[in-house]
Amino acid sequence: MHVAAIAGGTGAAKLLRGLTAVMDARDLTIVGNTGDDTEVWGLHVSPDLDTVTYALAGRLDVERGWGLAGETFRCLEAMGDLGAETWFNLGDRDLATHVFRTRALRAGATLTAVTAELARRLGVATRILPMSNDPVRTRVRTPDGWLSFQEYFVREKAQVQVLEVEYAGAARARPAPGVLEAVREADVVVVCPSNPVTSVGPVLAVPGVADGLAATRARVVGVSPIVGGAAVSGPASELMRARGLAVSPVGVATAYAPWLDALVLDHRDAAYVAELDGLGLAAVPADTLMIDRAREIALARVVLTS
Amino acid sequence: MHVAAIAGGTGAAKLLRGLTAVMDARDLTIVGNTGDDTEVWGLHVSPDLDTVTYALAGRLDVERGWGLAGETFRCLEAMGDLGAETWFNLGDRDLATHVFRTRALRAGATLTAVTAELARRLGVATRILPMSNDPVRTRVRTPDGWLSFQEYFVREKAQVQVLEVEYAGAARARPAPGVLEAVREADVVVVCPSNPVTSVGPVLAVPGVADGLAATRARVVGVSPIVGGAAVSGPASELMRARGLAVSPVGVATAYAPWLDALVLDHRDAAYVAELDGLGLAAVPADTLMIDRAREIALARVVLTS
Repeated sequence: MHVAAIAGGTGAAKLLRGLTAVMDARDLTIVGNTGDDTEVWGLHVSPDLDTVTYALAGRLDVERGWGLAGETFRCLEAMGDLGAETWFNLGDRDLATHVFRTRALRAGATLTAVTAELARRLGVATRILPMSNDPVRTRVRTPDGWLSFQEYFVREKAQVQVLEVEYAGAARARPAPGVLEAVREADVVVVCPSNPVTSVGPVLAVPGVADGLAATRARVVGVSPIVGGAAVSGPASELMRARGLAVSPVGVATAYAPWLDALVLDHRDAAYVAELDGLGLAAVPADTLMIDRAREIALARVVLTS
Repeated sequence: MHVAAIAGGTGAAKLLRGLTAVMDARDLTIVGNTGDDTEVWGLHVSPDLDTVTYALAGRLDVERGWGLAGETFRCLEAMGDLGAETWFNLGDRDLATHVFRTRALRAGATLTAVTAELARRLGVATRILPMSNDPVRTRVRTPDGWLSFQEYFVREKAQVQVLEVEYAGAARARPAPGVLEAVREADVVVVCPSNPVTSVGPVLAVPGVADGLAATRARVVGVSPIVGGAAVSGPASELMRARGLAVSPVGVATAYAPWLDALVLDHRDAAYVAELDGLGLAAVPADTLMIDRAREIALARVVLTS
């Protein structure tokens, strides 16, 4: 069975770990969001690709949901001494990833190639693809103007009002090699429990991806990142509202409506099942919080059979 | 009194600390060697400028003679995990310097400007100038071919035969702003106890510097880095032999002959005084090893009065 997974960062990482435990990890292709990629100190940082890679390598800091376990922040402190911006927390070991990536990109490598190389060197068997090798940058309009996603999410801690979200560059971006093929040739496409607006949204904004999802013979199964009226992690609620989406599994389904076959939602949201059925998709209640490895695996099994 | 100092790294750092203790640090201008600058992981590293800056900031690891005190090497370890080269030891806090510098250079800043900014941010009052903003790279020819200075010195630990030394790019390099002025307007020019071939040599190879030393009204005082027939630190002996220079204060004086007024040499080399006198310069025996702060200061006083 071949599986393609559209993935953001923290929320996706757990389900992806579960999937690689219940299937041959080499038959999984991850299409990762690069809309929140950013440049920090002149270094190219791909937060979502790294979170996924670290998770599958068994190195993710699972408490924080980002970065490497057992990390230190000595370079960050020294950058602060030099007066550089320090609101984006780059750990010392994590920094190696960004230095490695930046050098390769400057030497002419594609993000696809660097992402694959990093995964290989960290012992990850699963194929991890960036959604595009062209720059797509999620930007958030606030009452004080446009912010990059990381400025909004990390620097402002998502504590500012969101008026609008855009994916700068998306209209001109091409899907990275392998992305459309993975969607087309999969038996199941999983839309991970990631932020529909700023994690999955940028992937869908790359021309060809949404059409590919509509055309694929694969069953397309999403997992709602909204549980009990709020996002499990991150600022999805505010961003969904800004997009006119209900902060509920129905809002998630609406975002994916043209091509979603099934939506796995949390048991505590079972009241939405009838409404979701009315949208013409299968609504599958399950335990979606993945608070331990066993529940990551259990949810992965539900997703692959929904 | 205005002093200009031509400086390499480890050997120079101690004398420069001594000088700043016995004079107004703001009246000292350091002309630093950039011939052993290198690129590590895509980052611009200026080992000698950094050693001098860290020393004057009170942050140098005085045991090693390079890098920052209390340093860790977590990013280096992670780069090793990624399969990158790790023979050049970049510490986590030191890395901030190189990331900061590289970003500024890529944004169009000169090495002069970045060096001044780093010094300012680390609280160093003394002016530290790179010898040139143009790339000059010391290369060493061995039986197996040409090596960069850092490949020779750090990677090969100076354990290969040296057939030839060259300063690639020197013929086209211009002295950095302030270098010739500092030499011209100084009351004393100090040639630090640095490697005559690979630390002071590249500075002298920049067109205009040697002429400036010959023309200045300043007294030009060197300190021999050779004591008892060997270099106090580093590979000066082998490199001096490769250049046909005696491994003695006389060899040092010969390298600087056209413009050197006085050479401070170690007491244990007092036997060379007569020969040096014969070369037409003042030979001043002193305690040159600078094994503690008091002796750094004492030597600085000797240098300024020789």
